[in-house]
Amino acid sequence: MKHLISSVACLFVAAVAFAQVPAPTPALYSEKTMKELELLQQAALAGDYAYRITRHLSNNIGPRLSGSAQAQTAVEYVADEMRKAGMEVRLQKVMVPHWVRGIETGEVIDFPGMAANTTQKIVLTALGGSVATSTDGLTAEIVVVKSFEELNELGRDKIAGKIVLYNNKFDTKMQESGFGGAAYGQAVQFRFAGAMNAARLGAVGVLVRSAGGSQNRLAHTGSMGYDPNIAKIPGAAVSYEDAEMLAHLASEGRVRVRIVLTPKTLPDAISYNVIGDVKGSEKPDEIVVVGGHLDSWDLGTGAIDDAAGVAVSMQAAYLVKKLNLKTRRTIRVVAFMNEENGGAGGRGYFDEYKSAVHFAAIESDLGASHPLGFDFSGKPEALPFFAPLSNVLLSQGANQVQLRPGGVGADIAPLTQAGVPSFAPWFNQQTYFNYHHTAADTFDKVNPKELGELGAVMAVLAYGLANLERPLPR
Amino acid sequence: MKHLISSVACLFVAAVAFAQVPAPTPALYSEKTMKELELLQQAALAGDYAYRITRHLSNNIGPRLSGSAQAQTAVEYVADEMRKAGMEVRLQKVMVPHWVRGIETGEVIDFPGMAANTTQKIVLTALGGSVATSTDGLTAEIVVVKSFEELNELGRDKIAGKIVLYNNKFDTKMQESGFGGAAYGQAVQFRFAGAMNAARLGAVGVLVRSAGGSQNRLAHTGSMGYDPNIAKIPGAAVSYEDAEMLAHLASEGRVRVRIVLTPKTLPDAISYNVIGDVKGSEKPDEIVVVGGHLDSWDLGTGAIDDAAGVAVSMQAAYLVKKLNLKTRRTIRVVAFMNEENGGAGGRGYFDEYKSAVHFAAIESDLGASHPLGFDFSGKPEALPFFAPLSNVLLSQGANQVQLRPGGVGADIAPLTQAGVPSFAPWFNQQTYFNYHHTAADTFDKVNPKELGELGAVMAVLAYGLANLERPLPR
Repeated sequence: MKHLISSVACLFVAAVAFAQVPAPTPALYSEKTMKELELLQQAALAGDYAYRITRHLSNNIGPRLSGSAQAQTAVEYVADEMRKAGMEVRLQKVMVPHWVRGIETGEVIDFPGMAANTTQKIVLTALGGSVATSTDGLTAEIVVVKSFEELNELGRDKIAGKIVLYNNKFDTKMQESGFGGAAYGQAVQFRFAGAMNAARLGAVGVLVRSAGGSQNRLAHTGSMGYDPNIAKIPGAAVSYEDAEMLAHLASEGRVRVRIVLTPKTLPDAISYNVIGDVKGSEKPDEIVVVGGHLDSWDLGTGAIDDAAGVAVSMQAAYLVKKLNLKTRRTIRVVAFMNEENGGAGGRGYFDEYKSAVHFAAIESDLGASHPLGFDFSGKPEALPFFAPLSNVLLSQGANQVQLRPGGVGADIAPLTQAGVPSFAPWFNQQTYFNYHHTAADTFDKVNPKELGELGAVMAVLAYGLANLERPLPR
Repeated sequence: MKHLISSVACLFVAAVAFAQVPAPTPALYSEKTMKELELLQQAALAGDYAYRITRHLSNNIGPRLSGSAQAQTAVEYVADEMRKAGMEVRLQKVMVPHWVRGIETGEVIDFPGMAANTTQKIVLTALGGSVATSTDGLTAEIVVVKSFEELNELGRDKIAGKIVLYNNKFDTKMQESGFGGAAYGQAVQFRFAGAMNAARLGAVGVLVRSAGGSQNRLAHTGSMGYDPNIAKIPGAAVSYEDAEMLAHLASEGRVRVRIVLTPKTLPDAISYNVIGDVKGSEKPDEIVVVGGHLDSWDLGTGAIDDAAGVAVSMQAAYLVKKLNLKTRRTIRVVAFMNEENGGAGGRGYFDEYKSAVHFAAIESDLGASHPLGFDFSGKPEALPFFAPLSNVLLSQGANQVQLRPGGVGADIAPLTQAGVPSFAPWFNQQTYFNYHHTAADTFDKVNPKELGELGAVMAVLAYGLANLERPLPR
């Protein structure tokens, strides 16, 4: 996959050069549309609609885990704001998992040379979907591994009855280089598959070094998976610091820990995707989806993941209405529910609307930092069609286009897989994974200027795709 | 004070220039001593003694709040290591406060437009010495102020019955410029005096924006003061993020919060300063104190505050012994107890030893980052005496000397005030206050190379002062 991406990156350089050619491309857009795209861009850069929506979702509503009262409040708030902005709004019902975090504590209770009556606290957080320990907690020796290979080499003899600590280091250098997502992709496998792989060898619990760049004693939650044929064992993430401390102690001898996790999995709950349409004037049945996800993890307030994505999607439609622009195709804003721990919203949307004509789909779900341009998942032959949009975005330094055959967003993945040309802002990812899924994903992490830039990319993409004069190769 | 410091900084530039003059200063040191100073410096830069001591104190013992079992474990460990290093060890008994953190939670329970059954968590931590709320918690409206002036202008009418949130912003630009301590000095007044000033106007509790640079949802603890003539009200620090969120909500209307704090103040406990002497060969009765503090706050593991300071102090004596050097005066390592919440160790040391001849005192208590040289509190006429030491430290970029008339360390402050020439490493303080007094003050924050540099400054200072051929002006 990496190989493919980098070879395509070369191709893409050509596309950028093309975008910089001043000659207009009248077959793709009218001059009027080109001017409207610039108007939209400037309005997004100067406005504060998305900033205010993001702030309300983060500060006034707060964490929005699927099934929670806050998630429902957010549904109603977004629907209301969409109506105010002049969209045709529909709440699409979806059933979502309803997992609720409980008490979560951890401590080292024994290691070589440990003094009587002392302890060492472990900062941890239950992984989403984890089963609970008993209320007295789970007490066991830890075994530290860095990979599944190392786990399997140790085998049942060494693993059975133990708590496995996956101590794979998040690649901070890769993140600092702007590729936080790639670093995350390497680290997250242990969070997702760690418990089932350890349980297969008889482990009684797992601790996972946080799959993020934070070095501020923050544990990083996120979904974990279970294999229905293997015992479900509790799983928690420990902070970077605690992983380091535990690995040091384990290097000196036997370490026993006690962890208490009391999450509950309640019956699935009713929730909603919030769908807001700005109907197309010429081709109303052709849809450009533009969205983010409305649910969030419960530790922070879900500002960069993904209140910002929802807000800039709403803003694209809001600005089209505010500027009295006529969109040829329908711009459909979707605030997806349950991206974080199930994906019910993305699947539910596709299941109901798969026979509709989706001209394109756009999702913003990697924060609100400076956008370098956009990612594209679709036919490479389509790249030249984006040159006029890149040309508009050049003035804000966002004219790069990156072909990503693997997809560009979880909620629109079913559409992408069905052949719908798919887009996402291409972010500088130097800091996103320092906050993602932690208690520090809060509104202050949103830089108004950068959110403005993101909003401009989203508005130009949405309106540009909705007004393209020709169909995209697909 | 600032004015004085900056005018002296100019004077000091002259001292640095002097240090860079290659001419030796035979009246201050023998050639042999100059060579020994370089040997000590190189041994500190290359060695790992201080790193291992810091690691053990942080990872294997953990938080060491005065009165705790961990603090006692640390006393025994340090005494044992001092004996192994060949020092004459004494435990000096001191009575220390014994405050124990309990449950601490906070939540927003009401603000304009808040939906039913929702809440917004507040990340907070009790300030050291705080009284408890009732076990049901304290529920009240908040009043946000940025200064004591603003508090007093609001007056009893607006403050009585409320929880005051001091929302003074930590100056991150000042910290980024290398002057974290100055930024801290501006911010910490609200933590210390906030409760008594608010209680005077009838407030029922205080929240204080964390007096540090962290923007990672970490609350910053530390001592608070009470006035014996004013009601004691509970005090807690909220994280940067929570202060921002609460201030936003309060800008929209009335905000009520509930905070639960259940700390306990137990009877004063017996504890100890750990004192390790390397006796002087010529003037054993003249003492150069070199120390840090052994106690720490309880949220992190006290690695940079101040396991590192204790470790580099021990290392100075360890290296003198290991290299078979003869110190003219006595080098006395002191691991002070209770710097954080009372200062009993520093006072206790002075009370017992004030009639002894203290030639100089050195304290390291501002972390373990790159040292630029050292701070000096004493007669400006003494500055030229340090030129040979600065000359040695020039090779590691630590030849700067800064005159600080106000003192250079809390534990040695009574000595300083009694006229003992006093020293501290001068650190780059660009990150220290991001971790200080938070859960993220952990061993991983110690960079081995920088700790080596710090160790070299401490060893050169300690041995240099202990072997100076002439008395210092005082």
